[in-house]
Amino acid sequence: MSRTSIPANLKLGFLGAGQLARMSALEAFRFGIQVSVFSDRTENEPVQFMTPYSTSGSFDSVDDMVEFAKGCDVITLENEFISSDILKEVQEKSGTPIFPSPDSFALIENKLIEKQTFEAAGIPVTPYELVKSEADLSAFGDQHGWPFMLKSSKGGYDGYGNETVKDLESAKQAFSNLGGEKGQDILAEAFVDFTKELAVQVARNETGTVVYPCCETVQENHICVAVLSPAPVEKIVQELAQELAVKATKAIDGKGIFAFEFFLTKDGHLILNESAPRPHNSGHYTIEGTVASQFENHVRAVLGLPLGSTRLNKPAVAMINLLGTHKRPAKTDHIKEALSEENGHLHVYGKVESKVGRKMAHYTLLGDDLEETHTQAKELTRNIEI
Amino acid sequence: MSRTSIPANLKLGFLGAGQLARMSALEAFRFGIQVSVFSDRTENEPVQFMTPYSTSGSFDSVDDMVEFAKGCDVITLENEFISSDILKEVQEKSGTPIFPSPDSFALIENKLIEKQTFEAAGIPVTPYELVKSEADLSAFGDQHGWPFMLKSSKGGYDGYGNETVKDLESAKQAFSNLGGEKGQDILAEAFVDFTKELAVQVARNETGTVVYPCCETVQENHICVAVLSPAPVEKIVQELAQELAVKATKAIDGKGIFAFEFFLTKDGHLILNESAPRPHNSGHYTIEGTVASQFENHVRAVLGLPLGSTRLNKPAVAMINLLGTHKRPAKTDHIKEALSEENGHLHVYGKVESKVGRKMAHYTLLGDDLEETHTQAKELTRNIEI
Repeated sequence: MSRTSIPANLKLGFLGAGQLARMSALEAFRFGIQVSVFSDRTENEPVQFMTPYSTSGSFDSVDDMVEFAKGCDVITLENEFISSDILKEVQEKSGTPIFPSPDSFALIENKLIEKQTFEAAGIPVTPYELVKSEADLSAFGDQHGWPFMLKSSKGGYDGYGNETVKDLESAKQAFSNLGGEKGQDILAEAFVDFTKELAVQVARNETGTVVYPCCETVQENHICVAVLSPAPVEKIVQELAQELAVKATKAIDGKGIFAFEFFLTKDGHLILNESAPRPHNSGHYTIEGTVASQFENHVRAVLGLPLGSTRLNKPAVAMINLLGTHKRPAKTDHIKEALSEENGHLHVYGKVESKVGRKMAHYTLLGDDLEETHTQAKELTRNIEI
Repeated sequence: MSRTSIPANLKLGFLGAGQLARMSALEAFRFGIQVSVFSDRTENEPVQFMTPYSTSGSFDSVDDMVEFAKGCDVITLENEFISSDILKEVQEKSGTPIFPSPDSFALIENKLIEKQTFEAAGIPVTPYELVKSEADLSAFGDQHGWPFMLKSSKGGYDGYGNETVKDLESAKQAFSNLGGEKGQDILAEAFVDFTKELAVQVARNETGTVVYPCCETVQENHICVAVLSPAPVEKIVQELAQELAVKATKAIDGKGIFAFEFFLTKDGHLILNESAPRPHNSGHYTIEGTVASQFENHVRAVLGLPLGSTRLNKPAVAMINLLGTHKRPAKTDHIKEALSEENGHLHVYGKVESKVGRKMAHYTLLGDDLEETHTQAKELTRNIEI
């Protein structure tokens, strides 16, 4: 459905109430659109401070979500915690459309189907096998080398549901930990020898498709600490990543905002690593870095509005993730330098509790030279303590 | 108080819940700051859709507001409806600081004191007299010419509390209508022969003072229909307006965001027309037009945070006010063209009822040439119907 009108009291419902819904809600508010949130936590979720329309219930309960969905005009997601079967039932019983659609989500929630779908669309994916036995584990290690990854086909998120296995013994243990013996589909995935991790966001609906610049996600200890845009790789690599991301979005008939993470291999190939049917940490830099942010295009896409421009506002953008440094009530300290920098933008997520390593805030700096901008952004945020 | 830290659960209270509080609240949310609103209406105010912390009561009741203020860390204003005496009492009894301070507000809420304050600071103001009798009215008309304006010294807003008088008979009638016979102070104000109306916003707190570019407010039938920035006047005039605005802010020891409207006379002088201790329609263009908007600096200023940059993002910015065209439930129709323009930004205020002439939304277009950008912005919004 495409829309050229915004009625008063139009209500966008979010399943999930974390910082991704929070930043999307800010864009909905800008259009005078109301926001309703459904969370599996009763309080202290970032969006719960931003709307009088907050419901809590279980992500496994169709009834809870149907009741919520009936009060909304359109529903969208901020996480991958709800199964596509449940989403489909919620959509049918409430009569409220959900974007990205349950059908699209069904193609990526299961890692096996996801890989098959993208492979069929001609998108290179990490080498993988469905493993069912000790013999499969052993064969995969022999073929692709140790160590490799074992992943449960459903429910993985930010490292959960994944284990790195270094030999047959640890592989058998991980297979069991991940539920392989209880019938859970387990994928073996080869490690890819990569030089950089890249990401691209795509927004798509009935009115068209827009693709963001290809950015680099800089990781330390498997946590993204910075995003640099455009990625410091050759133009042809950037364009190929964008092309693959658009292809992947179309392969699942995606309507909404999507993020795709790629490995750039040592021999210069791109391999799709992960996809997300929602705004993504790799796209936070777009709030100030591009004309219309991933959050604005999330809202536009799911409501059927024309999509906004993904053009960069400055030649170089660096985003620094500000991670919790204490287990304590959240407090963003020593922000004077960051706030005083003319081209810097601080975003605090409104979480109530800080935990070590938890994403609490981010800082975006716009500049002309990518390396300088990255260095300066790190300096400006060095003293921030959360 | 200057602040270099943002604790979780920091709560900013707004007295008033209209579109100015709404756009300020969006910036508070960006910093993870919670928003609490006090309104004299029980429902359907724009910010009431954006927070679970909404209270209604009377702007004349100290008790209502003290109760509200006790739940906030800092209080700010979005209108001039509450007297400085009441604000002072609310501040004292609740212990919650109010910015702009009641003392600053006391210097501008009364038009007579306002003019005296700014005159004493060396800022040219519209010729005026306190009028108390028929003889005063007649003398003012003789000296400054008919027609002139009569204004009640307190409570004026957007044309309310003002009357244009063309002769002694209408002057006597207006004097009575405005409460002159009941002891209300009435000012006579000469019409100024101006070529343009200009405006400047200033943000100020303990950390410093920042001034926005001088813009032009384009009026039709006494309603601002467009704002152009930088104002198409000589650089020296822009700079003088900025200088006078900063001087005026300091004259009232203002902490917060302030807007000053000037007449540019035919002979090239600037005369201060009005001041507002809050974000102002003339500064809406700053949301995309400058690095940090008037709303962001409003939040920064009242919380004691370092102030953001007021630099223009593009050489030319045009903002079009989208006024209600019907009396009906609000609906923003025919927005496809406006939303599809790469450099255009639509903001809808979330009001539930449209009224003819009511400010319902605005549209900001960034460009390189001011006249072209203005023309294009008008074209892109021509079909929008609210």
